[in-house]
Amino acid sequence: MNPLVSIIMGSTSDLPVMEKAAKFLDEMGISFEMNALSAHRTPGEVEEFALRASERGIKVIIAGAGMAAALPGVIAANTTVPVIGVPIKGMLDGLDALLSIVQMPPGIPVATMGVNGALNAAILASEMLALADDGIASKLQAYKTGLKQKIVKANAELADVKYTHKTN
Amino acid sequence: MNPLVSIIMGSTSDLPVMEKAAKFLDEMGISFEMNALSAHRTPGEVEEFALRASERGIKVIIAGAGMAAALPGVIAANTTVPVIGVPIKGMLDGLDALLSIVQMPPGIPVATMGVNGALNAAILASEMLALADDGIASKLQAYKTGLKQKIVKANAELADVKYTHKTN
Amino acid sequence: MNPLVSIIMGSTSDLPVMEKAAKFLDEMGISFEMNALSAHRTPGEVEEFALRASERGIKVIIAGAGMAAALPGVIAANTTVPVIGVPIKGMLDGLDALLSIVQMPPGIPVATMGVNGALNAAILASEMLALADDGIASKLQAYKTGLKQKIVKANAELADVKYTHKTN
Amino acid sequence: MNPLVSIIMGSTSDLPVMEKAAKFLDEMGISFEMNALSAHRTPGEVEEFALRASERGIKVIIAGAGMAAALPGVIAANTTVPVIGVPIKGMLDGLDALLSIVQMPPGIPVATMGVNGALNAAILASEMLALADDGIASKLQAYKTGLKQKIVKANAELADVKYTHKTN
Amino acid sequence: MNPLVSIIMGSTSDLPVMEKAAKFLDEMGISFEMNALSAHRTPGEVEEFALRASERGIKVIIAGAGMAAALPGVIAANTTVPVIGVPIKGMLDGLDALLSIVQMPPGIPVATMGVNGALNAAILASEMLALADDGIASKLQAYKTGLKQKIVKANAELADVKYTHKTN
Amino acid sequence: MNPLVSIIMGSTSDLPVMEKAAKFLDEMGISFEMNALSAHRTPGEVEEFALRASERGIKVIIAGAGMAAALPGVIAANTTVPVIGVPIKGMLDGLDALLSIVQMPPGIPVATMGVNGALNAAILASEMLALADDGIASKLQAYKTGLKQKIVKANAELADVKYTHKTN
Amino acid sequence: MNPLVSIIMGSTSDLPVMEKAAKFLDEMGISFEMNALSAHRTPGEVEEFALRASERGIKVIIAGAGMAAALPGVIAANTTVPVIGVPIKGMLDGLDALLSIVQMPPGIPVATMGVNGALNAAILASEMLALADDGIASKLQAYKTGLKQKIVKANAELADVKYTHKTN
Amino acid sequence: MNPLVSIIMGSTSDLPVMEKAAKFLDEMGISFEMNALSAHRTPGEVEEFALRASERGIKVIIAGAGMAAALPGVIAANTTVPVIGVPIKGMLDGLDALLSIVQMPPGIPVATMGVNGALNAAILASEMLALADDGIASKLQAYKTGLKQKIVKANAELADVKYTHKTN
Repeated sequence: MNPLVSIIMGSTSDLPVMEKAAKFLDEMGISFEMNALSAHRTPGEVEEFALRASERGIKVIIAGAGMAAALPGVIAANTTVPVIGVPIKGMLDGLDALLSIVQMPPGIPVATMGVNGALNAAILASEMLALADDGIASKLQAYKTGLKQKIVKANAELADVKYTHKTN
Repeated sequence: MNPLVSIIMGSTSDLPVMEKAAKFLDEMGISFEMNALSAHRTPGEVEEFALRASERGIKVIIAGAGMAAALPGVIAANTTVPVIGVPIKGMLDGLDALLSIVQMPPGIPVATMGVNGALNAAILASEMLALADDGIASKLQAYKTGLKQKIVKANAELADVKYTHKTN
Repeated sequence: MNPLVSIIMGSTSDLPVMEKAAKFLDEMGISFEMNALSAHRTPGEVEEFALRASERGIKVIIAGAGMAAALPGVIAANTTVPVIGVPIKGMLDGLDALLSIVQMPPGIPVATMGVNGALNAAILASEMLALADDGIASKLQAYKTGLKQKIVKANAELADVKYTHKTN
Repeated sequence: MNPLVSIIMGSTSDLPVMEKAAKFLDEMGISFEMNALSAHRTPGEVEEFALRASERGIKVIIAGAGMAAALPGVIAANTTVPVIGVPIKGMLDGLDALLSIVQMPPGIPVATMGVNGALNAAILASEMLALADDGIASKLQAYKTGLKQKIVKANAELADVKYTHKTN
Repeated sequence: MNPLVSIIMGSTSDLPVMEKAAKFLDEMGISFEMNALSAHRTPGEVEEFALRASERGIKVIIAGAGMAAALPGVIAANTTVPVIGVPIKGMLDGLDALLSIVQMPPGIPVATMGVNGALNAAILASEMLALADDGIASKLQAYKTGLKQKIVKANAELADVKYTHKTN
Repeated sequence: MNPLVSIIMGSTSDLPVMEKAAKFLDEMGISFEMNALSAHRTPGEVEEFALRASERGIKVIIAGAGMAAALPGVIAANTTVPVIGVPIKGMLDGLDALLSIVQMPPGIPVATMGVNGALNAAILASEMLALADDGIASKLQAYKTGLKQKIVKANAELADVKYTHKTN
Repeated sequence: MNPLVSIIMGSTSDLPVMEKAAKFLDEMGISFEMNALSAHRTPGEVEEFALRASERGIKVIIAGAGMAAALPGVIAANTTVPVIGVPIKGMLDGLDALLSIVQMPPGIPVATMGVNGALNAAILASEMLALADDGIASKLQAYKTGLKQKIVKANAELADVKYTHKTN
Repeated sequence: MNPLVSIIMGSTSDLPVMEKAAKFLDEMGISFEMNALSAHRTPGEVEEFALRASERGIKVIIAGAGMAAALPGVIAANTTVPVIGVPIKGMLDGLDALLSIVQMPPGIPVATMGVNGALNAAILASEMLALADDGIASKLQAYKTGLKQKIVKANAELADVKYTHKTN
């Protein structure tokens, strides 16, 4: 099955963060590929990837990068496939990557997630695909209900926490 | 024609920023609606809007807000329709709104744009719709070509700028 | 005894911070409840909680949340019961949560504490309740005297610290 | 009538911000006083004010200050009356005042508002007073309904905004 | 004469900043060209420019860009010609552009100037060229002496400033 | 009369800020000199100034600078005369200058003032000189009393501000 | 011997930082005292301390505090003895304490050190005392020479570091 | 062989960062020296080093420093040899050092690297030297190809990562 989503990371050291996206897509039954491509180390490959993404049937691109994170924006510059950017935490608490990804100039949007927000990137990708796929839509709805039930259950457990008088 | 995109703003004072999204959608021939709804002043209406967006046929929601900008996240909490967040500049250079929108918890993504990035929000919405609409896809491609031509023309004009010896 | 204070947290992972509020209220003999409710995962429950808080006899709400911390503001949007917000440290040193809570729009205040300031939230809640309860007022006064005595004692011990000539 | 709320500002140059608090309390029919007292220029007066606030019948203190804004914290150090802090924008976008007010040590809370959030300070003060005063509670409820109606009306006007094809 | 330095800007709106570089090179008698090329709007042109810069005889590239300023880094990714980056002030006081340019990953340096530091970019370019050109080296030395003389003269004038007793 | 205080500024464009220091010293009757010396443009002069300051009878040095404000630290590196640093606001709200001045390494202190805090620099210089000069000590005490009286008078005027019911 | 310098800390948890000041003064043979006094927990003691410092013969006050660090400013408000402020690192990397101490209003200076800069505070205090004490002046000069020799020696050792070809 | 590049660090504690520069130059076969010189502790040595660098045949200077990192700028003030600055991470995530180095005044550029970017400093130095040395140019080109191959190989390995259904 051809991949619908392409997960790109600037370095394989970003894999521990980005694989959360892969796992979620796997759970949703959405086909995907993963690639390590760097806007600064393999710029030609990035451009070629982006220019061909649409014809290869890629519907959504998730791109994670740290520091001066040019990768999501450079991909977006070369395609009209929606690009979701994930700032990876490194130096400066990830603020450098966040600003490098989110502050795109007029004309070239990148859908930016929070720092290390790879799971949310996969959920957003699923939401986009669900616009034309009722099966994914149903699974997403079930996932969201699950989120709620987890916190409802946690809430029930909280009711049992008791405090006795003690100072610390 | 039912709107495909819903543009929500937390206050009508955000209209000068958010109308850039409206104008772009208008150019693309994409039907949209605009609403002023506040997560903090009309929370019930926000919830009702979000819960009913999908059944009303809304495919993408663009939500702009400033300061402690809860609006995009609260809408996203109540729907699986993709939500694009636009931080509006106010106090603190818009950094407060940016962080309030982008740093969403796992499970509830908001596709965040740069500060005052309403035009980009509309372009991203168009990219999402283009996944299942070849007409929009063609218009987007044409728009992108236009962006490039503008800068190519600017470049040609730059070649004529001359500098003579002078200190300032 | 019906709870006078409701402690809400966005996630049970916030419990180690938020239980400092619970312990203080316990010491003061003020009845309270604790709930895990998320503005983004259980928005309906949050709204229902906030709308019913007053009629249930809740006098003060303490809400802790991290990242794009919408919880305190969304609760405040649905009630006139005073809401105290506690930014929880996570990414970005808690600055994201702090700005998401404190920068509320005109009309909907949240009484914001410092990052992880759950103990102070409980003290402020006690101060509010003390306005109409002399018993709590007396206990608060005693607590404050205790704070002072601890530092006076520490001061006495400092007098015994001696330094001899050595470089490091 | 004795004042229930005391509005303190570090400098009369803060009056344009702080008078928003005064106007709201006036609308609510809540008695108040206004004073200019500086933690750094009139420290003795600040201490005396804080120590005597409770016996003078003051129920809530609103303190606004800019830069290294010690005023709210120093007042809170000398009373158990709830203190609401308003960071005033000056240098550094008001971030200096915000951090100087909100990051209080354990034991001495200040209910911090957003930068220049004097109106919200007055609303929060009203919420505290409403805990024991049904008249104020009713007025607050009416105020909140008014906030909602303003945005509902704005929303209705937005429906009439039309966009025609034009680029800018 | 073939240009030795290429000045690239992401948008012609950056010209008022970047022309300070052009003027300095003009004063030094160093040949240069100016181009508007955008990493996000004309990515193909940027890549082609960078790949061919060396064979065209370009010795130093000065690239200015604002917001998510990918331009200098993307050029550096495609050449071993030294690249000097100039963050252009826009939103967020230019901090976004500064971090987007300076925080390059290992392997791909960009010589980053201060915000709007186009003049310094041209001076640094001249210093690099002076390594192999004694004529430029002499001019640079003269320029630096001039800088010093200006401040020495200013100092002499300061000696004449007198203050009389007055309070403000 | 030989100057006791030397006011140094990195550029004569800093004069509007730094002359507040000169005026205060003038009022106090403390002799001073003003110089424009730049750590980056006239480094030799800065070093010579600093090395000779003590033997010339200078008791306190006030150094103001903006951006990468090396001036105060470089002076402090070459003398044991106390150096007071004044960050001058420019780019980045003066945060660059503040951090460049205050974050000195162990061994070389600079007494740092707030952004544009030249008046406070002069007051601190006077406090240092007052340690060995009772006349200055008396004048300082009178100045501080004056500060207090201004705010006491402002307070009296505030009592006359009245608010009538009006919304804005 | 009466203390010439008073070292104040907001909490005994600040002792590991502040004792560096004590050790340096001890090495210089300057008499000092140490006290734990909190602007927020023992405000009365702080005021009394500050008001009496001069008559007790205290020549310089070093005050360290973290978070909303009001201590140095409040002491400075009550005395004309020079006050040196040391921001203690806690939350937010110490930026909260730094801004709370350095951004003093006009009229009340605090000589601010870098984050955790207690050693520098003691050196600055020594420089102030050296203005009227040649013995201290000599010791300071010797200390500074020692600083230089340490780095000269380190430099000599660096010359022996060799690198062989290896990648990492 | 006389050194072409001089690596300067403000303290030997910076060696673990700065030696990455040394190793790269060693791999490139470029002669270099390393020195510990401090703008604040050995200012005279820094000045002498900078003034003599050119006549000693130094072609590029790499200077690393932390905190109020004046070293690169002070060296640049005394030479027209290109200076590359490396901000060393310490307090405040290295933001203090970054701003202290990059925000140079007009006239005195420092080619600033990212925080701890010593490897990039050496690559940039090599790029400058390669302008007049084809051997270095070839090695640099080979290094860049190697960077690309590493990521291409990583990419190939990524293709083998598989995910099975599991939640975490």
